[in-house]
Amino acid sequence: MTDLEKHQRMANAIRFLSVDAVEQANSGHPGLPMGAADIATVLFTQFLKFDPTAPNWADRDRFVLSAGHGSMLQYSLLYLLGYEDFTLDQLKNFRQIGALTAGHPEYGHGAGIETTTGPLGQGLANAVGMAIAERLLETRFGSDLVDHYTYVLAGDGCLMEGISQEALSLAGHLKLNKLIVIWDDNGISIDGAVSLTDSTDQVARFAASGWNTLSIDGHDPSAIETAIRQAQASDRPTLIAAKTTIGFGAPTKAGTAKVHGAPLGADEIKGAREALNWPHDAFDVPSDILDAWRIAGLKSAHARKDWEKRFANKDADTRAEFERRLRGDLPADLHEALQAYKKQLADDQPTMATRKASEAVLSVINGVVPETIGGSADLTGSNNTKTEQTAPVTPDDFSGRYIHWGVREHGMAAAMNGMALHGGLIPYSGGFLVFSDYCRPAIRLAALMKQRVIHVMTHDSIGLGEDGPTHQPVEHYAALRAIPGLNFFRPADITETLECWQLALEAKETPSILALTRQNLASQRKTYEDKNLCARGAYVLIDSDDEAQVTIFASGSEVEIATAAHAKLTEEGIATRVVSVPCFELFEQQSDDYQDAVVGNSPVKIAVEAGIRMGWDRFIGTGGAFIGMSGFGASGPYKSLYEHFGITSDAVVAAAKSRISG
Amino acid sequence: MTDLEKHQRMANAIRFLSVDAVEQANSGHPGLPMGAADIATVLFTQFLKFDPTAPNWADRDRFVLSAGHGSMLQYSLLYLLGYEDFTLDQLKNFRQIGALTAGHPEYGHGAGIETTTGPLGQGLANAVGMAIAERLLETRFGSDLVDHYTYVLAGDGCLMEGISQEALSLAGHLKLNKLIVIWDDNGISIDGAVSLTDSTDQVARFAASGWNTLSIDGHDPSAIETAIRQAQASDRPTLIAAKTTIGFGAPTKAGTAKVHGAPLGADEIKGAREALNWPHDAFDVPSDILDAWRIAGLKSAHARKDWEKRFANKDADTRAEFERRLRGDLPADLHEALQAYKKQLADDQPTMATRKASEAVLSVINGVVPETIGGSADLTGSNNTKTEQTAPVTPDDFSGRYIHWGVREHGMAAAMNGMALHGGLIPYSGGFLVFSDYCRPAIRLAALMKQRVIHVMTHDSIGLGEDGPTHQPVEHYAALRAIPGLNFFRPADITETLECWQLALEAKETPSILALTRQNLASQRKTYEDKNLCARGAYVLIDSDDEAQVTIFASGSEVEIATAAHAKLTEEGIATRVVSVPCFELFEQQSDDYQDAVVGNSPVKIAVEAGIRMGWDRFIGTGGAFIGMSGFGASGPYKSLYEHFGITSDAVVAAAKSRISG
Repeated sequence: MTDLEKHQRMANAIRFLSVDAVEQANSGHPGLPMGAADIATVLFTQFLKFDPTAPNWADRDRFVLSAGHGSMLQYSLLYLLGYEDFTLDQLKNFRQIGALTAGHPEYGHGAGIETTTGPLGQGLANAVGMAIAERLLETRFGSDLVDHYTYVLAGDGCLMEGISQEALSLAGHLKLNKLIVIWDDNGISIDGAVSLTDSTDQVARFAASGWNTLSIDGHDPSAIETAIRQAQASDRPTLIAAKTTIGFGAPTKAGTAKVHGAPLGADEIKGAREALNWPHDAFDVPSDILDAWRIAGLKSAHARKDWEKRFANKDADTRAEFERRLRGDLPADLHEALQAYKKQLADDQPTMATRKASEAVLSVINGVVPETIGGSADLTGSNNTKTEQTAPVTPDDFSGRYIHWGVREHGMAAAMNGMALHGGLIPYSGGFLVFSDYCRPAIRLAALMKQRVIHVMTHDSIGLGEDGPTHQPVEHYAALRAIPGLNFFRPADITETLECWQLALEAKETPSILALTRQNLASQRKTYEDKNLCARGAYVLIDSDDEAQVTIFASGSEVEIATAAHAKLTEEGIATRVVSVPCFELFEQQSDDYQDAVVGNSPVKIAVEAGIRMGWDRFIGTGGAFIGMSGFGASGPYKSLYEHFGITSDAVVAAAKSRISG
Repeated sequence: MTDLEKHQRMANAIRFLSVDAVEQANSGHPGLPMGAADIATVLFTQFLKFDPTAPNWADRDRFVLSAGHGSMLQYSLLYLLGYEDFTLDQLKNFRQIGALTAGHPEYGHGAGIETTTGPLGQGLANAVGMAIAERLLETRFGSDLVDHYTYVLAGDGCLMEGISQEALSLAGHLKLNKLIVIWDDNGISIDGAVSLTDSTDQVARFAASGWNTLSIDGHDPSAIETAIRQAQASDRPTLIAAKTTIGFGAPTKAGTAKVHGAPLGADEIKGAREALNWPHDAFDVPSDILDAWRIAGLKSAHARKDWEKRFANKDADTRAEFERRLRGDLPADLHEALQAYKKQLADDQPTMATRKASEAVLSVINGVVPETIGGSADLTGSNNTKTEQTAPVTPDDFSGRYIHWGVREHGMAAAMNGMALHGGLIPYSGGFLVFSDYCRPAIRLAALMKQRVIHVMTHDSIGLGEDGPTHQPVEHYAALRAIPGLNFFRPADITETLECWQLALEAKETPSILALTRQNLASQRKTYEDKNLCARGAYVLIDSDDEAQVTIFASGSEVEIATAAHAKLTEEGIATRVVSVPCFELFEQQSDDYQDAVVGNSPVKIAVEAGIRMGWDRFIGTGGAFIGMSGFGASGPYKSLYEHFGITSDAVVAAAKSRISG
């Protein structure tokens, strides 16, 4: 058997495992695995650095299947290489409930999958984040501990999505030379030929953002090998445009959209087996070929053993710090530092915007937690995400801790997912809350993947004022609270801001959003509490001596309005409680008893929030009064806007009194 | 006064009106108007075809300020040219509540503003849609009625946003040669120099997608003139990269980020007045310069008078049809055609997926409504948005009615906004509901601008099955219902699908989303009703003879589950009603009496929907039972998923019985 024959048989093993699994599931995408099998075979047997027996080894190369619909390519590889989670039974259970082999690769479904893909373009942007993380950690721990490549297999769809431009332009700017993107250039998308919809010269496009570019025949193993070798040597990120035939080997469907997303059918599979000289039964990989794959898996493992030796030779502090960061544990002294600052705040009672409060808290955090990496989507001065500890990262210097992401909200959020997945770092961003819409698909994936990414989103209501309705969040609180597995925080003052930051950092498996004001807010918390009151999601900020007639629930900047209304009502002898609600999601996780106690049973319940009502019925019931927004905002000075939309303490008082009398 | 001096003084009028308005508001962005004033002066006085006295004339050139923060550039222009809505008082009221001169240009705030901008990149993509609309209508009505350019002024931020890639690659592919984008290449973004974050050769990037590209000095009026002339003559869309100095004329802040988004301050303004030799008071434009601008406004109006003559010479049918389409009125025979089909459905009682139902209904609509333009983001066969009437639009033939948008959800939705804004067309799209997240910023703007765009979003729940949680909407119903001014429809069968389509078409000032299933659904509506029952948002689908003990509320595919539960409960002697809820938003617009009657007062209320609970408390109260999702979905055959997540008629029955006994 020549090397070429061996290569082809190994690639065919991928092809037919994929075809057979799709056929058995009667669902899936055979076209990409058949077309990209040659690329994957060369990459995984000759280049990728990994160890199937230690799939989470920190210095492994990362492989991202951005074209996630080709999931069977990855599952076949993981099985062939001997990753223990991916048994033949798993392949036979492709796309069934409970199988690790979900329709698209799901992070957490078995070790060996680096990220969840399927929503196109996300994987490419995750990979940019992983490559950033590699450079950051290499700068911190040295290249004998951190020195790996990030490989991406991307499809035409990935490159058509706008997020790809944000990702590639950033990668080019930052000269992420260990990022290697292989574009499976098969010229076919679901509706037919790509030429139906696009005429872009992708190679020229990547070159325009400073990438090294190569064009090859994606079925020629030696061309693939040469290209990857050249890519590894480049001082810039590399695009390898690999011409392939989708569904390579399928006798009548290859090269057409028919092979993209549907089982081939028995006849076509029979024809493919003949065409590719693969006379084996479904799911049957001849032992010599399986052995060849397993040997490739073992061979790569040497790199890990060498790394373990280098790691063992490091001093104990370095080892401990490296391991702590990779585990994602926070430094032991963070808690104390934050509590000390919280004490000071109880004394100082500062009035400030929560975006400024966040900056102050971040100054404490960044002084103690070296693994935070801040940034902003070109709104640094508005988001207040940069502290004295965070020098900017530049293309030639990754010792900094602050990323100027540019006007790239979506790319930023997806790259942050990649940084968190890579491990060793805690990324936090800056942006305007209204533009959470621009990065929503990546926020959703952070939640699905349970990644600790923290988004600082300022200018969180009509309180931003003159920029007007295009910039004023109204529906965003509800829309973000709707995403499962995401903590949406809206702190009311600097102490709550501190507590919410604390919670976001401690939530190792939950992404967080901190919605912060542009406008100043008075301190609401008058005394120091050792406990993190925000941890329960909602709590009684002001209780009433008598049995309360009115309870006012509020979040963020409207807590100030609630306490002002409380003062007026109390003055009129109406017993009133105020409940601060910084985080719906954490509140829902509390015991029924706690929840019932906080909601209470005062006859009148009112919620105040400068957004829409959706979600507040949980607190006030369908009969409660809601003081907030029912449509879009407007352009004007913020105080006039609050008046204009009737979000005032007087409105709360009036609502309370009308309900008491009514 | 030489021509150059005159040009400079006219440009300075823009500069200082903008500077003065920002100063007076103590808020806003002087940098862009100062930097782009030369470009705007040449474009508006020498090229743009418009008539200030007939600002909505159909064949005017469109101008889009994609860099919407530079709104004072546009307001200054509109005032100088004599648009009656934009008085000097409006400029003096910049960014105040109720003023037409909002922080960012708002469509509907005075005639002359073609689209709402501010969220970066949107305007550029809107303009692509406008240019598509122009080509489509030119093909239908001839170039003597439709022949205009679309001009865009875009900033660095617009070009960094991913949506710009979707927009420009589509424009290049479609050879939209009457689209001319002027890039205000000032090298500055909010965080500082663009070189902090990006190294893209934008000219090469546009060229890679087939654009004509030109590079000029953006302060040289003759270079600007020559470039626009060349752009007009191109057979491809043109990018004019115009190097400018942000804040041109500001003595110490020009060319820096300081001049981007904050008032200049008195000293800097004084210095600018000196530097640019503009010794006039705030808001004072010398009469000779104002006259020069007004004359430019009048001059351009000749084109309209010529057009009116050509229009008057058309036959009555053409005139009537052109005017009908531009008014956005539907053809008179649509209603009858749909009612006839609805009658047939009542007889046939077909079982089919609502995506297929939508296709069947669209076949009727597209046969009667020539102005619908369909499309899909590369999911034509899945979305079922293409009917026998809709041949594809190609770069060389715009007689078709179907746009293969490619994998560009965001660009698609924003371009559709542009098509709707242009007028004369009703765009509808196709996509997967989960990827509404990818185009959410554009959907929000459609709602803010009150544009009739219709998004067909299929695969609307875990019912899509094997593709798994990345593709399964869970929070999207709530998140879309949260957007003010958007109708989110989730029809339960083909008859409801027809009615929802009818409502979407009739809603001239409201965008609509139709959430449709992949899986088959039985007909729920058993008899023909002349009235559109979905028009009230929710209605009693099955009433009970006795006083109801249980009411089941459901939308879309879960109505089938509700009716099955109804049958079981009725068999057990438990009087039960079923309420179908195709559209929350329309329901909220009904009278209190109607709402109360539909909600009813049965002691047990249950909602069933394959999404999260948020929003349903409106119907079932906080004590009601909700059968749905509380987290992300999973990969598996859809029937097993419904079982797995407990969204079944048995679960509804069990919930009902436990509440009756409890």
